[in-house]
Amino acid sequence: MSIIALRGGITSPQGFSVGIGEAGIRDSGGPDLVLVASDRPASAAATFTTNLMRAAPVLLAEEALAANSATARGIVINAGCANAGTGPTGLEDARAVVAAAASHLGCQPHQVLPASTGLIGSRLPVAAMQAAMPTLRLRRSRAAAGRAARAIMTTDTRPKERAVSTRLADDRLVRIGGMAKGAGMIHPQMATMLAFVTTDAPVDPHTLGSLLRPVVERTFNQVSVDGDTSTNDTVIVLGNGAAGGPPIAGDDRRTFADALESVCRSLAIAIAADGEGARHLIEVTVRGGADDADARAVARTVAASSLVKTAVHGADPNWGRIAAAAGRSGIRFDPDRMRICIGDVTVYDGTPLDFDDRRARRILRRATVPLSLDLLAGTGSGTAWGCDLSADYVAINSEYPT
Amino acid sequence: MSIIALRGGITSPQGFSVGIGEAGIRDSGGPDLVLVASDRPASAAATFTTNLMRAAPVLLAEEALAANSATARGIVINAGCANAGTGPTGLEDARAVVAAAASHLGCQPHQVLPASTGLIGSRLPVAAMQAAMPTLRLRRSRAAAGRAARAIMTTDTRPKERAVSTRLADDRLVRIGGMAKGAGMIHPQMATMLAFVTTDAPVDPHTLGSLLRPVVERTFNQVSVDGDTSTNDTVIVLGNGAAGGPPIAGDDRRTFADALESVCRSLAIAIAADGEGARHLIEVTVRGGADDADARAVARTVAASSLVKTAVHGADPNWGRIAAAAGRSGIRFDPDRMRICIGDVTVYDGTPLDFDDRRARRILRRATVPLSLDLLAGTGSGTAWGCDLSADYVAINSEYPT
Repeated sequence: MSIIALRGGITSPQGFSVGIGEAGIRDSGGPDLVLVASDRPASAAATFTTNLMRAAPVLLAEEALAANSATARGIVINAGCANAGTGPTGLEDARAVVAAAASHLGCQPHQVLPASTGLIGSRLPVAAMQAAMPTLRLRRSRAAAGRAARAIMTTDTRPKERAVSTRLADDRLVRIGGMAKGAGMIHPQMATMLAFVTTDAPVDPHTLGSLLRPVVERTFNQVSVDGDTSTNDTVIVLGNGAAGGPPIAGDDRRTFADALESVCRSLAIAIAADGEGARHLIEVTVRGGADDADARAVARTVAASSLVKTAVHGADPNWGRIAAAAGRSGIRFDPDRMRICIGDVTVYDGTPLDFDDRRARRILRRATVPLSLDLLAGTGSGTAWGCDLSADYVAINSEYPT
Repeated sequence: MSIIALRGGITSPQGFSVGIGEAGIRDSGGPDLVLVASDRPASAAATFTTNLMRAAPVLLAEEALAANSATARGIVINAGCANAGTGPTGLEDARAVVAAAASHLGCQPHQVLPASTGLIGSRLPVAAMQAAMPTLRLRRSRAAAGRAARAIMTTDTRPKERAVSTRLADDRLVRIGGMAKGAGMIHPQMATMLAFVTTDAPVDPHTLGSLLRPVVERTFNQVSVDGDTSTNDTVIVLGNGAAGGPPIAGDDRRTFADALESVCRSLAIAIAADGEGARHLIEVTVRGGADDADARAVARTVAASSLVKTAVHGADPNWGRIAAAAGRSGIRFDPDRMRICIGDVTVYDGTPLDFDDRRARRILRRATVPLSLDLLAGTGSGTAWGCDLSADYVAINSEYPT
């Protein structure tokens, strides 16, 4: 059941390839158009933003998943334009881009799922994207996967891709690969900015969907950069069965779900670590919740607190802010029994402790800052990931052009 | 029914005085202890934080209001120490301070309501506060009220006090005065950091409480500086009836409530405008909600959005962030019909508009930035107040010592 990390990303599973193009969508130039292709129809599962304002590609991807019985041949992704707040015109634009991608792949339009990231309110340059589409060379190389992860970035400072393999009960090797982008407007509810996962495991669409949802709850939905839920949040998983053999069932469900969670968690953490202006990843672990959902909610509130984020930025062991954030999470527990640790330094135990301030500050200066809380209310646990709040976040978002 | 603004604050209503002392509670020195006194028993109403972690003074004030049948002689307030997260010891500390204040006022301890602001987790210097208490000279002057408003500040840059008068149906003049402090950890739920209001109107405790709650919903609860709900949020209103005559009833309830709301709104706005690091007050007005509560919730989400706050900081007419924040508010409406204005410039009307960018940027550079949304879902309306997010906010909160 062990999960082996692979070098690579979205093309590590068999039967997947990626094409990268430049359609002038982003002002700064460079690759901005990506096509992820499966060489055969793949089971598809997805989760989307819960923001009431849903971008055109989100609406169209949902429509496609209903029309294609949750099987797809590919995903067409662009950076530089979110195609959100663009109304019926934006939806037609997305349809035109999807049609061009389907034509290039030789499949039906509803077999291609769209995703967009970038500015809200501007229109896609459809003609340029249609012109670029036939030039996209589909490649399986690790280098191509890396270029794709880079092409979907906006204010991200580094590409985010992960791949793993695991063995099923009958010793079959299956692979899972993924890429994501994050940076800003990151406070996912049901999904995060953009994440794409491929697998060559044979898995039917229903199973894929039922395995994906709890994984997303524990991974992408536990990340926050700035508390703002995007209009375009999308996680799509394609499983093309290229590894061969019968569909995943029985104990293999758990094996596969664990590997899927490993890829999603790793991508989610990469998003938090690369939050706009961030210098530290904050990992908040909560134990002793009445249940896992409670623990996750407390972890998420602490990780998203502006005052906790600035305290980490200043290496200040201000446990009062951690306690206050937990207290406003909406979850019931007894704050007079709660325990709070910064790394291995217990700073509060129902009462303020006389702790080693210098050691706590040293832990707060690490690249990854571990905070933990024990609510002593049950056996639920959960983790959330955030980042510090810096003057750079303010600069990036005061100067990001409309 | 007109409401007349008065110069002054907490001592403008008849029969109220204030004492100010220095007990060395804050490291920086200066006045940090305030006693607000009524010369006769006053009806008392209060709202407190919904944070599960409630500071000792919050617990004790609630206990006192139950024990004193909602009548009080005074409020004892300190800055420099929140007395939160301090457990049973903190509660005993608060009791000792209240007992000293009651002794100075010549009343029962349960007739004095405590409130604290400052660092979480440190203990009150009880002996120093007990020693300072008898030195507090009670004064009625406007200057003394101003010094009191200054003594309760933490990272606030200016004192916040307001006073108004209004006439009841029988031509009686009644006055309402108040002071508040805000600055950080401001995202009230049921109350805000600290606000104290006095009135000489004769009003029974039950009426005062029932009038206060909706006012707080529309004023203090509609302010956000950083999304963090404090452990000490407290609004206390004392009505001592010194204006004379029969208790407020009938149409006078509305007259009085309007004047009370005017004071509370003005203090709430002052808190938002003086948020940590803020250069702009953001006023978000929402119309067309299914009801007022919906409209308020949308306004509050927009005013609290980090991305809206940084856009205002950068004078960037980024309506997509406003729309996205409205969309994640949890309130139902049709985003394809919504209208968004920056001042008098309509920037979105169910579809992106080609608006006057220079004019929108000029409006965004004003001290008060008016943003408005029409949800076209009903007749509900509401307003929320926030402030821009600046590098100074980060500096203040990275460097604020524990």
